[in-house]
Amino acid sequence: MQIAIEIKTTKKEEIIDITGQVKEIVKKSDIDEGICLVYVPHATCSVIINENYDKAVCEDILATLNKIIPLHDNYKHDKIDNNAAAHIKAAILGPSQSLSVHDGILQLGQWQGIAIAEFDGPRDRKVYINISR
Amino acid sequence: MQIAIEIKTTKKEEIIDITGQVKEIVKKSDIDEGICLVYVPHATCSVIINENYDKAVCEDILATLNKIIPLHDNYKHDKIDNNAAAHIKAAILGPSQSLSVHDGILQLGQWQGIAIAEFDGPRDRKVYINISR
Amino acid sequence: MQIAIEIKTTKKEEIIDITGQVKEIVKKSDIDEGICLVYVPHATCSVIINENYDKAVCEDILATLNKIIPLHDNYKHDKIDNNAAAHIKAAILGPSQSLSVHDGILQLGQWQGIAIAEFDGPRDRKVYINISR
Repeated sequence: MQIAIEIKTTKKEEIIDITGQVKEIVKKSDIDEGICLVYVPHATCSVIINENYDKAVCEDILATLNKIIPLHDNYKHDKIDNNAAAHIKAAILGPSQSLSVHDGILQLGQWQGIAIAEFDGPRDRKVYINISR
Repeated sequence: MQIAIEIKTTKKEEIIDITGQVKEIVKKSDIDEGICLVYVPHATCSVIINENYDKAVCEDILATLNKIIPLHDNYKHDKIDNNAAAHIKAAILGPSQSLSVHDGILQLGQWQGIAIAEFDGPRDRKVYINISR
Repeated sequence: MQIAIEIKTTKKEEIIDITGQVKEIVKKSDIDEGICLVYVPHATCSVIINENYDKAVCEDILATLNKIIPLHDNYKHDKIDNNAAAHIKAAILGPSQSLSVHDGILQLGQWQGIAIAEFDGPRDRKVYINISR
């Protein structure tokens, strides 16, 4: 089973919460115990899991990534397509997160939300959700 | 199947090996071939896989993360809860690791151990272990 | 089911594409829907997913990691085995990636390739491929 959801990002960089959509897909599946994969088929965005209560956490994450991996820094790929920093961030953070499904419920912690981290928007993004028993 | 284990961390930052506990859970399950998920339901700690023989590797990992992501650096979230750096580290490293189960045995390499990386302790932490066929 | 493939790396640091080999293993398995784990049982290399069309992206990733985590920086582990930076990179990037299998096909995006990131070569490396239903 693979369910795809579509997300329109609106900025160059942003973190967009998709927790509700993933929870709903898990609830509607008939799987009680398993592993849920949340995957983006893109090379300039990532899936992250972190606090989604105080939105300042998302701003701190994006700002810190930009200090570590500046938007422009004599990257070779910038001569081909001006988004090398987005590729580097996506490679380090990775395109997916895996979660536990137990008693039919996605086992997120109290302060954990699932989000798409966009590094080269605005773009139309897809997210694949798979659940394995 | 989800098994939860509990870990009490004792410092602000530390890396605590849980390899033996995860291996034991895999051995006791009746699953010969599959994927094992090791997941923390927390937003200020992570699961890492790396060398657990020379403990200096753990010290080098924590020290390097603190150079890259300083404990305090005008983070916006620090005004709400003084642990923004811990959230950023946890977001970048992620809350889980997935491993192969083959012939009923967790397929760790010779120099690989599984550990909890605490970034905002001391706290009571949970770890969820799931095995999918 | 676990299939192991073997990769000989030839440099201290390099990114070696294994997309074709993983796709072939997925195609030959009789699994239509599931999660595919690509895992290296090593503590000084990682699996990454990113663009494999413009090779400059790989050079930018390795160069940026070396700016963030210099090859030598008074690491404690360097006194035991002169490869602390490789361990730190491998711990942050992690030893695996998980992907979706749908309709019997590995669901990579148009610009995504799977690769081994070697941080302490040249070495003989193994990659484990598992597919869970």
